[in-house]
Amino acid sequence: MKVALAQINTIVGDISGNCEKVLHGLRRAVGEGAEVVVFPELALFGYPPKDLVYRKTLLDRNIESLAHVAQACVNITALIGFVQRDPSETGKGIRNAAAVCRGGKVEAVYAKMLLPTYDVFDEARYFDPGVEPLTFEQRSRGRTHVVGVTICEDLWNNTQFEGRAVYGVDPIKLTSSRGANLFVNLSASPYRAGVNAEREALFSTQVKALGVPLVYVNQVGGHDDLLFDGASLVMNARGETVARAKAFAEDFLIVEAPEGSGRLEPYPDRIESIRQALMLGLRDYLHKCGFDSVLIGLSGGIDSALVAVLAADALGPDHVYGVAMPSRYSSVHSLEDAERLAENLGIHFQVVSIKDAHRVMEQSVEPVFAEAPPGSTTLAEENLQARIRGNILMALSNKFGRLVLATGNKSEWAVGYCTLYGDMCGGLAVLSDVPKSAVYELARHINTLTGYDRIPDRVLTKAPSAELRENQTDQDTLPPYDILDAILEAYVEREASIEEVIAQGFDRAVVERVARMVDLSEYKRKQAPVGLKVTSRAFGTGRRMPIAARFG
Amino acid sequence: MKVALAQINTIVGDISGNCEKVLHGLRRAVGEGAEVVVFPELALFGYPPKDLVYRKTLLDRNIESLAHVAQACVNITALIGFVQRDPSETGKGIRNAAAVCRGGKVEAVYAKMLLPTYDVFDEARYFDPGVEPLTFEQRSRGRTHVVGVTICEDLWNNTQFEGRAVYGVDPIKLTSSRGANLFVNLSASPYRAGVNAEREALFSTQVKALGVPLVYVNQVGGHDDLLFDGASLVMNARGETVARAKAFAEDFLIVEAPEGSGRLEPYPDRIESIRQALMLGLRDYLHKCGFDSVLIGLSGGIDSALVAVLAADALGPDHVYGVAMPSRYSSVHSLEDAERLAENLGIHFQVVSIKDAHRVMEQSVEPVFAEAPPGSTTLAEENLQARIRGNILMALSNKFGRLVLATGNKSEWAVGYCTLYGDMCGGLAVLSDVPKSAVYELARHINTLTGYDRIPDRVLTKAPSAELRENQTDQDTLPPYDILDAILEAYVEREASIEEVIAQGFDRAVVERVARMVDLSEYKRKQAPVGLKVTSRAFGTGRRMPIAARFG
Repeated sequence: MKVALAQINTIVGDISGNCEKVLHGLRRAVGEGAEVVVFPELALFGYPPKDLVYRKTLLDRNIESLAHVAQACVNITALIGFVQRDPSETGKGIRNAAAVCRGGKVEAVYAKMLLPTYDVFDEARYFDPGVEPLTFEQRSRGRTHVVGVTICEDLWNNTQFEGRAVYGVDPIKLTSSRGANLFVNLSASPYRAGVNAEREALFSTQVKALGVPLVYVNQVGGHDDLLFDGASLVMNARGETVARAKAFAEDFLIVEAPEGSGRLEPYPDRIESIRQALMLGLRDYLHKCGFDSVLIGLSGGIDSALVAVLAADALGPDHVYGVAMPSRYSSVHSLEDAERLAENLGIHFQVVSIKDAHRVMEQSVEPVFAEAPPGSTTLAEENLQARIRGNILMALSNKFGRLVLATGNKSEWAVGYCTLYGDMCGGLAVLSDVPKSAVYELARHINTLTGYDRIPDRVLTKAPSAELRENQTDQDTLPPYDILDAILEAYVEREASIEEVIAQGFDRAVVERVARMVDLSEYKRKQAPVGLKVTSRAFGTGRRMPIAARFG
Repeated sequence: MKVALAQINTIVGDISGNCEKVLHGLRRAVGEGAEVVVFPELALFGYPPKDLVYRKTLLDRNIESLAHVAQACVNITALIGFVQRDPSETGKGIRNAAAVCRGGKVEAVYAKMLLPTYDVFDEARYFDPGVEPLTFEQRSRGRTHVVGVTICEDLWNNTQFEGRAVYGVDPIKLTSSRGANLFVNLSASPYRAGVNAEREALFSTQVKALGVPLVYVNQVGGHDDLLFDGASLVMNARGETVARAKAFAEDFLIVEAPEGSGRLEPYPDRIESIRQALMLGLRDYLHKCGFDSVLIGLSGGIDSALVAVLAADALGPDHVYGVAMPSRYSSVHSLEDAERLAENLGIHFQVVSIKDAHRVMEQSVEPVFAEAPPGSTTLAEENLQARIRGNILMALSNKFGRLVLATGNKSEWAVGYCTLYGDMCGGLAVLSDVPKSAVYELARHINTLTGYDRIPDRVLTKAPSAELRENQTDQDTLPPYDILDAILEAYVEREASIEEVIAQGFDRAVVERVARMVDLSEYKRKQAPVGLKVTSRAFGTGRRMPIAARFG
């Protein structure tokens, strides 16, 4: 049986645009002789729909679009994700559903049974869980296939991976006990570093346990903080991946199910996958927001250099504007490095000095600052500069309609080593989930890829500095980044307690100080721009902390 | 039977501090001869605990504290909210629970069955629902009372109020069918304007239907955006409120249940309740964050004037610092009005001119701005000033350790008539859920309360203006505020569609323009400070919109 995997990139809420993509995929599938075509989870609405599902107009439009698409399903069976009005009398009133379209109509609807409500997922906020599994029969060349339909999380209730069963039911087992001999899963499964290996290991376990092959179709594309990597696949009953679509791009894959194999795209290794994920997230955020070019404050440091490379590669250099904003504390090499980088990348480059503005701002606050108790820190003076730069970037953004990219990394954001309304300014934070050590790794990887020092070597080797006072370096304030990142990985990503982190072999005083810095910086992250998620736990929607709290 | 209602103000995560409050309430109840004492939902952990419940250390501490408190329950029965480790094998592993402490130990535990997961609530993210109702017998003077225990939302599953039953079970009915002749509900039920009348009407319906009286204990206090109004109460079986604790303050109330009445505090009317809610939220946010004074940019306009009054009344004038930051576009009356207001309130007052900084910033960007296409708007130039003011406020905040209060109102935030990193700066937005028309109403109410023009009359009567260009008024850009607010109430608060709003009698072009402004301003609100919630739908945690989306 010929099955098509239509791995598309939708826009949340853009029902007519998404419907066009579905129709296009449908026509292509028919054209290539497919008997079944599968689209991702909520393909018509886009995932995650968030509070837009409360808009009756959009909900109606998504249901009308499904009817429209179903009419076109004459010589093919299509599985399409959409938001269903819940027919039951209690509950929230809508479900995350998959329609089986055949014979010019919606023949059956399956509603997702397992609704992820943790990390970045809020599905129990919106949807009622489905209560019935769905299988349907598909005849092909004299043989009857029984297809078991599930949606994303339905496939993930495995104690072996979670330690405990999060849910009381296992939808794929239910379809299997109804005789399914082919699993089809419609997904919107976000990327994180390492996800593909984890995903395929889990699928393999599930598939082998039940002896049923799997067709898995994932959406691709950036949706605010969430990056969907695609990499849709077909797995045989022995748990081997026999076909895989591209990662980080739309794709259309045809296989001969259930036994046949197909094109097997390689999945990029960890660091390259992060690079591609960030480029996809950056490009999609920009374009889906209706922008066409970006603005980056180039400090001469590694974070802004990396963001500039990613932007140049994702958008083309002509859509990238670098702005250097030297102050009296900027070193000569900073400006040189920024300029050299811009040359290497072929991006636009401008210099706006903040020296005069800085001096005048200091003078403006001087009479009030004079009342400060002696011995107070220079933090206020340092932040003044960062916020002048933020103001200039935003002025250029407002004037020319370019989106500002924030360049802070996860390590800085974690401990609050960043200035709110200063270097945290921007519409999108490209590296806010990339720890500083991974920033270096990515930069080296990019230079290796291109075969020369596209990011100037000095940027990689000099001591990191915010350059907000004389001879400042990051390590005046922070532990070395390898230690800091290891502590943060435990404390933030794995929610380890302070004692557990210390037990890993770190110095108590350092761990306690880092934990305190993390906890006290919540208020900054509350006001941070959207940041692209590439780890298992990013700041933002997946980590919801109170601010006016007392703990530790 | 003597029942004590201990309406306390907890701090999220501060288990030892909260435990002290519980012990204090317990001792007082014993001292006053109570046989039962009831504390709010999650009294030991604080509500909402958010992702802090993932911290094993805090979870353990909350369970240890419960054991500690239970030991003290020798001559009294205490009902205490805490986070329970879930004994079942599947699920998330914790439950939102109430312990019945008696005879020096935890005698029984009830787990909340209905987990609100909508608006600001995320309970299904954290907790497994309880599956068993709980009743317990309490003997008092020869009579046996059967007490049915529920937690907050358990009481709210009523089709008459929601239109449909959100949940398939009705916990109070279950306790009633087990013979409960007294309902006790532990709550953390947030304030919104009108909530008390709605709450009492719903309780009354529930209570009358089952013929069982109710003891309801609500927490009080500000927890970031959420304001809990207390107003704990006792309702007789006829659905009449026979005792009520104070609104917006801690209280301790003793009643003779189930028939007796007690102290009946009045609940403030709508506008006064908003005033008290805002003061409570402001004070609690400040103090729970460890600050002691606030900084407010005083423009001479009504929003900042209102914030200054609320702060002065909530904190005492000596803890409030007003800063006027006139520019070349500021009118003479603006500075006069700001100064007069500061005098009236007795708060500190400083003037930091931004004229020089503004001029120099303009000069700094001038060479780049020169490349802009002719006819571009003056938006960039206008925002420059707002962001200079933001920079100055933040510099003073950093230097003196004072929290900046943002002064923007809900109408401005809704349509994006505000400058990100400019007037949106601050740790807390006091009026972000107060529409402009309610700002006026509050200001007039305050002047009436104090019996003179504490907020200078001119502030109330002049045409609102951002004063970012010559002769600017808000109505150059926005429809009149009464129309704007009515449209916003429909489009934002009630999620009405554009067509539905127009059907209310508004001009199509105006509605479409307002809706578009709302939708396009998501990115600003994403980066907004915490804002105090006083309506049924505030921007922030209760309204989760995608940014890179296309709809309308």
